[in-house]
Amino acid sequence: MAQFVNGKDTLVTDAIDGLLAASNGALYRLDGYPHIKVVCRSDWDKSNVALISGGGSGHEPAHAGFVGEGMLTAAVCGEVFASPSVDAVLAGILAVTGEAGCLLIVKNYTGDRLNFGLAAERARAYGLKVSMVIVDDDIALPDLPQARGVAGTLFVHKIAGSLAHDGADLDTVTTAAQETVDDMASIGKSLDTCTVPGSVKEGRIAPGMAELGLGIHGEAGVEQVPFESATSAMDMVLDKLMPHVAGKDCVALVNNLGSTTPLEMAVLTHAMANSEKAVGIKTIIGPAPLMTSLDMHGFSVSVLPLNSDRRAALSRNVPLPNWPGMATLAPVSVKPLPDGLSPIQPIPSENAETRRLIETCCDLLIAAEGDLNALDAKSGDGDTGSTLSTAARALKGAMDRMPLADLTQLFRAVGNELSQTMGGSSGVILAIFFGAAGDACANGRPTQEALLIALDRISQVGGARQGDRTMIDALQPALEALPQGLKAAAIQARTGANGTAAMGKARAGRASYVPEGNLIGHNDPGAEAVARLFEGLATA
Amino acid sequence: MAQFVNGKDTLVTDAIDGLLAASNGALYRLDGYPHIKVVCRSDWDKSNVALISGGGSGHEPAHAGFVGEGMLTAAVCGEVFASPSVDAVLAGILAVTGEAGCLLIVKNYTGDRLNFGLAAERARAYGLKVSMVIVDDDIALPDLPQARGVAGTLFVHKIAGSLAHDGADLDTVTTAAQETVDDMASIGKSLDTCTVPGSVKEGRIAPGMAELGLGIHGEAGVEQVPFESATSAMDMVLDKLMPHVAGKDCVALVNNLGSTTPLEMAVLTHAMANSEKAVGIKTIIGPAPLMTSLDMHGFSVSVLPLNSDRRAALSRNVPLPNWPGMATLAPVSVKPLPDGLSPIQPIPSENAETRRLIETCCDLLIAAEGDLNALDAKSGDGDTGSTLSTAARALKGAMDRMPLADLTQLFRAVGNELSQTMGGSSGVILAIFFGAAGDACANGRPTQEALLIALDRISQVGGARQGDRTMIDALQPALEALPQGLKAAAIQARTGANGTAAMGKARAGRASYVPEGNLIGHNDPGAEAVARLFEGLATA
Repeated sequence: MAQFVNGKDTLVTDAIDGLLAASNGALYRLDGYPHIKVVCRSDWDKSNVALISGGGSGHEPAHAGFVGEGMLTAAVCGEVFASPSVDAVLAGILAVTGEAGCLLIVKNYTGDRLNFGLAAERARAYGLKVSMVIVDDDIALPDLPQARGVAGTLFVHKIAGSLAHDGADLDTVTTAAQETVDDMASIGKSLDTCTVPGSVKEGRIAPGMAELGLGIHGEAGVEQVPFESATSAMDMVLDKLMPHVAGKDCVALVNNLGSTTPLEMAVLTHAMANSEKAVGIKTIIGPAPLMTSLDMHGFSVSVLPLNSDRRAALSRNVPLPNWPGMATLAPVSVKPLPDGLSPIQPIPSENAETRRLIETCCDLLIAAEGDLNALDAKSGDGDTGSTLSTAARALKGAMDRMPLADLTQLFRAVGNELSQTMGGSSGVILAIFFGAAGDACANGRPTQEALLIALDRISQVGGARQGDRTMIDALQPALEALPQGLKAAAIQARTGANGTAAMGKARAGRASYVPEGNLIGHNDPGAEAVARLFEGLATA
Repeated sequence: MAQFVNGKDTLVTDAIDGLLAASNGALYRLDGYPHIKVVCRSDWDKSNVALISGGGSGHEPAHAGFVGEGMLTAAVCGEVFASPSVDAVLAGILAVTGEAGCLLIVKNYTGDRLNFGLAAERARAYGLKVSMVIVDDDIALPDLPQARGVAGTLFVHKIAGSLAHDGADLDTVTTAAQETVDDMASIGKSLDTCTVPGSVKEGRIAPGMAELGLGIHGEAGVEQVPFESATSAMDMVLDKLMPHVAGKDCVALVNNLGSTTPLEMAVLTHAMANSEKAVGIKTIIGPAPLMTSLDMHGFSVSVLPLNSDRRAALSRNVPLPNWPGMATLAPVSVKPLPDGLSPIQPIPSENAETRRLIETCCDLLIAAEGDLNALDAKSGDGDTGSTLSTAARALKGAMDRMPLADLTQLFRAVGNELSQTMGGSSGVILAIFFGAAGDACANGRPTQEALLIALDRISQVGGARQGDRTMIDALQPALEALPQGLKAAAIQARTGANGTAAMGKARAGRASYVPEGNLIGHNDPGAEAVARLFEGLATA
């Protein structure tokens, strides 16, 4: 499976340099490529306790994405899923540790423990104060003597980071970090394993199945179960997690393991917010990618009981785009629909001349039904005539409800009527046309000008202009000629409609999908309808 | 392909409710489910111009994820890839629009244009001021009369959002939005199409190929090209984009189209930062998922020339975790490695008794090689004896370089020596042991106490304690008995070592992977080595 990389050898160094380039100068790295890959805060003055984490890459944004004020001071990055060397860790410690000392936050994998551990010894030989916590929050495999460190590591970064930022001493920071590790629990669930660059993907999880408790390197989980729904997947995770926090007031960190979409993560969050099993979960961090496993299609949840210190530390803002902040998990706030969704019902009024004009228009369109359908068959599905005549019949039947004596209201009412009785995009476009005409009349514009404004509006909304082989090619010249009388308008409409027959390519509407040439010699049916209307009115 | 959803019908409503639940009360929705899905800012007082966007879902975090102070006032969400209805848009307009009016930001798809357009007309009939911009930033298909709206939409949300927040009037906001639309350009590239929930995935892009210019609904792109590397993929995108901005000072918005990993997005960012083709790109937004296409494995880049107004608007902080902020695209900052990575070379010194003690230890381990290998073959790969004897031989050869007269420096030097000559995790663990012993001596602790402190350190780092079937089972009782003399220590070491034979299950180290029972009756080889050392020293 292809990935957007330049080769396995430069994958991690390229990615780190990409992170740094877009960090607004907030990060630098040590000059140790390819073996030593250490990312540090640019604004660090060593006055407080330094926090260093790291481990194998492939878990981005962890850990380099959390280097910055209020979280990590440095991240030591290994190759994908491989521990960094002792020298790399030592370089990180020496680069950022001052008299206040440093805390190493290490996920519980043998390589990381040993390499960070030996680097700590070496640093102590230089007189530096170095402490270390081992994060082992994964509860997936209860019989494993050494639980793995997974996304709960972020709790430690944030809580220790907040304390260190406030100037707490190394013992205080270490104790708070260790207590956080002791109290938290995490578990993941996934629909597929991850794709390690340069390796063949292990297709361990069959379609329709999900794996509970797999590790962040794709290690096999505790069991495979049929996947039923987001809700049942979340419930199963909560069933495993909640005994570890015994109903205490908790924060849940909802982590995207890699390629789960924002849509799915939001659905899972909804499932958690609504689950009866989430007893005590009143606060949430995420959903967000925090501790990923390359492109794993899964999620994890980490829970931690809160007290006021932890709440303050976790909710504190940090200038790190990868940290999503903490939020109170609240019931969904729902407000009533606004008034006005039903179109205003006009007060019917009478005007014999207007009634006759509209009825004539309707009759003209009904009479043209067959011809317009035949024309439309050249460029579309042959229903322009039927669509218009159906709407015309409905409009004739609605005349007694129309405000015929008030042009502003009449335009709007005709628009509403057409939007309800005329299908497809034509109905919406004509509804916009008459609505806009009414709007312009309401603003005091004379009728002809109002109609031209309305035409401009449907150009804007529909994207078609004169010359695009639409009804506009007839309607625009006709409306522009209207001050010279209906006869002049009819002549212009006919000229415009006939002109569309020479246009080989439609530039808007459905006919734009018809191959060039198929349209030559045939009038656009919409333009033809407009021409027939004006011709009919001129001779009525 | 399974996804974390509860069914197609509730996908979008579940996701919106998940977003709202985790919004810290910042968002509410209208009571119009399932047809009307409108997300609004809770803190909105209608005093400024309202900004409304929306369209089909499946592009999260766009648009509901950008509702909040400084960006959108409301988002109107359709089903996946389907335009919201006229009523839904109208409900959004009526819910949030005050006397200052509202701007509709609409991506250029027929359904969205028509439905937002008609809703705008209806809202105007109520006397509301409504304007609309159509976003058509996709340059993929130059012959398409109607360019699609893609991730550049975010520029409009942010620029218009900043102006509206500052109280600009509707004309000013609309003009700035329209100019932004006119000036920007976007294009995407992907290794695969997206998976529409409930539909079979269209496997259009063959393995090894990439598609340039495909749409955010998976519409076919302008061409398929062989995928070579992240760098060439980015270059191809820049080749298409840069003519549209003609070398002007630009911002680039780097968008994750769905399932591209953070690692890949960082590699692509590195490619852009280092490309000679990125002339004028001096600022960056992202990389981040901004306008996704479900789980599409691809990215897009949008460029916009900057002026001081746009720069101010885009760089302004907003309290929205989905907005990644804008950063100056800077050369990677690299600092030299710190001093001290090479272990301090001790000053050699002589002490005949110490030399004899160490040489005796080495000889004892060399003599035990075969027996220890045989024991290790029961629980591991049979190399404990060889590993120890190799290290012992090397240590004997290094005696003349050792600071034999200074115990603190000697412990540290032995640790460094072992970390270099002894392979595997045993070498690291013993290096930590001796390093920690030196550290304790330096802090004034007497030798026996220093060794116990060192033992505690390797327990912490390695995770093993007495009873876990490791060398600690012999070493700890021996060290504790040391004040009673070497003979007492040897008896305790032997008792401890023999006790491991009764431990059916190792709880740390590689032997923890060996099935229970296979180990019964055999001493742990590490513990046996410790026992032989003390026994040999006691009788030397």
